[in-house]
Amino acid sequence: MKKITLLIHCKDRPNIIARVTNFIADQGGNIVYLDQHVDREQNIFFMRLEAEFEGTEFSSEQFKDSFKNTLAESFKMKWRVYSSESQTKMALFVSKYDHCLYDLLGRYHSGELPLEIPFIISNHNDLKSIADRFNIPFYHIPVTKDTKEKAEEKQLELLKEHGIDFIVLARYMQIVTSKIISEYPNKIINIHHSFLPAFVGAKPYHSAFKRGVKIIGATSHYVTEALDAGPIIEQDVTRVSHSHNIHDLISKGRDLEKIVLSNAVKLHAQRKVMVYNNKTVIFS
Amino acid sequence: MKKITLLIHCKDRPNIIARVTNFIADQGGNIVYLDQHVDREQNIFFMRLEAEFEGTEFSSEQFKDSFKNTLAESFKMKWRVYSSESQTKMALFVSKYDHCLYDLLGRYHSGELPLEIPFIISNHNDLKSIADRFNIPFYHIPVTKDTKEKAEEKQLELLKEHGIDFIVLARYMQIVTSKIISEYPNKIINIHHSFLPAFVGAKPYHSAFKRGVKIIGATSHYVTEALDAGPIIEQDVTRVSHSHNIHDLISKGRDLEKIVLSNAVKLHAQRKVMVYNNKTVIFS
Amino acid sequence: MKKITLLIHCKDRPNIIARVTNFIADQGGNIVYLDQHVDREQNIFFMRLEAEFEGTEFSSEQFKDSFKNTLAESFKMKWRVYSSESQTKMALFVSKYDHCLYDLLGRYHSGELPLEIPFIISNHNDLKSIADRFNIPFYHIPVTKDTKEKAEEKQLELLKEHGIDFIVLARYMQIVTSKIISEYPNKIINIHHSFLPAFVGAKPYHSAFKRGVKIIGATSHYVTEALDAGPIIEQDVTRVSHSHNIHDLISKGRDLEKIVLSNAVKLHAQRKVMVYNNKTVIFS
Amino acid sequence: MKKITLLIHCKDRPNIIARVTNFIADQGGNIVYLDQHVDREQNIFFMRLEAEFEGTEFSSEQFKDSFKNTLAESFKMKWRVYSSESQTKMALFVSKYDHCLYDLLGRYHSGELPLEIPFIISNHNDLKSIADRFNIPFYHIPVTKDTKEKAEEKQLELLKEHGIDFIVLARYMQIVTSKIISEYPNKIINIHHSFLPAFVGAKPYHSAFKRGVKIIGATSHYVTEALDAGPIIEQDVTRVSHSHNIHDLISKGRDLEKIVLSNAVKLHAQRKVMVYNNKTVIFS
Repeated sequence: MKKITLLIHCKDRPNIIARVTNFIADQGGNIVYLDQHVDREQNIFFMRLEAEFEGTEFSSEQFKDSFKNTLAESFKMKWRVYSSESQTKMALFVSKYDHCLYDLLGRYHSGELPLEIPFIISNHNDLKSIADRFNIPFYHIPVTKDTKEKAEEKQLELLKEHGIDFIVLARYMQIVTSKIISEYPNKIINIHHSFLPAFVGAKPYHSAFKRGVKIIGATSHYVTEALDAGPIIEQDVTRVSHSHNIHDLISKGRDLEKIVLSNAVKLHAQRKVMVYNNKTVIFS
Repeated sequence: MKKITLLIHCKDRPNIIARVTNFIADQGGNIVYLDQHVDREQNIFFMRLEAEFEGTEFSSEQFKDSFKNTLAESFKMKWRVYSSESQTKMALFVSKYDHCLYDLLGRYHSGELPLEIPFIISNHNDLKSIADRFNIPFYHIPVTKDTKEKAEEKQLELLKEHGIDFIVLARYMQIVTSKIISEYPNKIINIHHSFLPAFVGAKPYHSAFKRGVKIIGATSHYVTEALDAGPIIEQDVTRVSHSHNIHDLISKGRDLEKIVLSNAVKLHAQRKVMVYNNKTVIFS
Repeated sequence: MKKITLLIHCKDRPNIIARVTNFIADQGGNIVYLDQHVDREQNIFFMRLEAEFEGTEFSSEQFKDSFKNTLAESFKMKWRVYSSESQTKMALFVSKYDHCLYDLLGRYHSGELPLEIPFIISNHNDLKSIADRFNIPFYHIPVTKDTKEKAEEKQLELLKEHGIDFIVLARYMQIVTSKIISEYPNKIINIHHSFLPAFVGAKPYHSAFKRGVKIIGATSHYVTEALDAGPIIEQDVTRVSHSHNIHDLISKGRDLEKIVLSNAVKLHAQRKVMVYNNKTVIFS
Repeated sequence: MKKITLLIHCKDRPNIIARVTNFIADQGGNIVYLDQHVDREQNIFFMRLEAEFEGTEFSSEQFKDSFKNTLAESFKMKWRVYSSESQTKMALFVSKYDHCLYDLLGRYHSGELPLEIPFIISNHNDLKSIADRFNIPFYHIPVTKDTKEKAEEKQLELLKEHGIDFIVLARYMQIVTSKIISEYPNKIINIHHSFLPAFVGAKPYHSAFKRGVKIIGATSHYVTEALDAGPIIEQDVTRVSHSHNIHDLISKGRDLEKIVLSNAVKLHAQRKVMVYNNKTVIFS
């Protein structure tokens, strides 16, 4: 049994669903999941579909060719097909905070994440012992104002060498430049420690404390060149009160950050996220 | 432009989606919403679909006939078609608590609920002034152990006379018997003031207080003959602490009850709920 | 049995609690509630205390005098004493949206709010029928750019004439100027339909939709001269997804707005809110 | 600077707060935190107080003696004093699930938990590698029906030998008998994977799935001899829908379990929990 995941978006027109589901049936597939969404304001159609194909004859390459030349062309679709046979590769970027790293590695080790982590990159050496503990190669690439360009070149080299599919910034305290972003569009996941768009930038817990909010949050989003302004994948919040000081906010926030980031990573790895207009459609 | 909502469930088999979407296309319809769900344990397929038909020729009766004789039969579907032309009629049953009543009537009056409320029934006279205030006929039908049977007959009479589609028990403090339930299967919506299945039966806030829970809830469900055990439509919860006494729990619970019940009423009225195996599929 | 609520804040110093609780004991009072908070960053002490006094001899005026000349002076306290004998008076300002009005009036009528509502002011006539339905005087005071000053004078006249203690802007779509704010400092409660400080100003649901947030919120705060930047009393949030359009956001937001505003009103009326540094301490 | 935490409960009587705060002042202490609660139904007074004492002369033993012979006796208090100088020792019991273990050890290693973990006990060997990774001694004590008594004796031996203060059952899949419970009353913290009191006992996610609930939860409580019926310390919940199968519920539940258990451990270790009438007072 082989399985594919098909993601489509295009201008909304009548009969797309019928045409696509017919196509799958013609190819001998059985649809086991289908979800669709229409943005009526923008008139865009989105679809996520999983189909199973029995027998050994099915080739996802052939499927792609066939889809490309028929439906994709006539509906001018943007589309992607993922085969269940290929494993996604994720690179982890960290600095000094360990909570998101522990959470991701714990899940990874338990088999909860459908992906492979070939290595961890950090601008500091602090978390090397954790990487060692989990037997994951750790590259220490320091970053200063002067060395940033070279550091990113070295990072890109590693990313390409290992065939990395997407990058997770697990509280990586550096700004990633367009050099890397342009190679990984909507494929770099960041965790920001506020309920975006509130408290963009540095020290959001301090800002939240100062403003006296009664709820704090965390936001996982794709990295774009605009700071903390990329498409939001996942958010969560928790209540706070006057009795919590900044230290308490940071501590409560850590729990949000790790759960929100891990959820975003899972959604991305399961091909459940589509991006358009700087927003996400999440088929969960 | 005419619009229908189609709800289907049947044994899962290949190509259902393709066949149904083709059928809609053949009838000249454009699918504006489609969601489906497969319960893999039970192997049951569920689908909710909204389609628009241009022109004046479309007849939902003809559509039903055609669907019945083709797809419905060959897939042995259980199905329903709702036309946007018909208005749903809801009866309200209340006793003495007014918060759910105020909430539903406020929304009703604001045009938030896609339905009509021909009348309110109560076993007490306390809330008559509210019904008057909103200009809705109010029938006071007292219920005692001895008069219960006759009271329910009178209720049924009113329900039929007004062509009521579904009933909402807005903190109606009486148990409804099989006489009415059998006429309105999965069409009587109750609000229970606990996070079911915890605290079934009377005085759930007192039980929650005694147990020392840190979160209380409210549950809206379809009424079946088993007490507080029918299919759950909607639930919500809120935090409490040792500092809250029973009075506080009741007060906080009221806010949950009214929001949860109103949400359940909206989901039902919008034909977004399907029931099977004493559970609900909510296409929202 | 007479009861007072005492609110204190001052520079933190040793023995404040012991001194205050001794004072209450000396006056023949029994403390039935005490909560305190120290902002260690600012070194400010806050306390809320409820005490009961048996017998008919207790006079809250005498108590105030005595407290003023002893503790209040020596600790340089800012303090207030509220007697259970006086009823708080709240004015409601509305425009065209009715959901917050319905919610507050429903609670008011049920006896849930410990206050009196002498009248409702609106710049439109749309909601007059609701005020009539609940038998509350309704003053229609239109506001245009040119008439704003005179309108506020008329509002102030009504507020003073009725001895109003605090004002609630229940989706009142006008900006209140310093003329009124200066007379009611930290006594005007607004509901803003976003999770502040995100989406300040007009049309926050439209901004939230555009940004693609996964959670929307509502915030109740005291009105200051800086737009939507006053001390936050209460916030709440709810999840949304790509499948919700702006209309859905507005509809879900309405439920947040009314619950959040009503909670803020209750906290204020129960003397549970203290304000400092543009933040609130909520003793709940 | 030395610091103590004082926990008191006793029959509610006038002037307790004044008397206790005076006592602290007389001893040269400055109260930096005070919270109290009165259960009016049961007429019980609860207090948690933190006080700082400058200078090296302060002795917590002397303080205890003095408190015991004066206030504690005259008010017939149940009380405990914890000095900031002593470190709490926690034993971890696990079986095969690793998510709670990873979460606790990650926090432990980051310095987030104010305690020491001298060892981990398990009835299986599966998680030994994780204990090794974090350099914590791991005792494999298999438990069968026949060996249970001896196993518990061995466990007790280890607990006593290391001077363990409290035990955390981090998804330990065995029932702990009265032999251990009686030695650690209200000092054994369990995590149950449901929103108690719903779904007591085995396989709660399966029961939740079958019942069709829309929200699942996790509960951390002290272990008593009645199964899953001990005093609740912390609970949390998350939304689920028809689209989630049992595997999804288990996966979502894991995130709840680990956060809820870690929060309960922190509250207990910080001496913020008081128990009475099979309920908890949480001074947080």
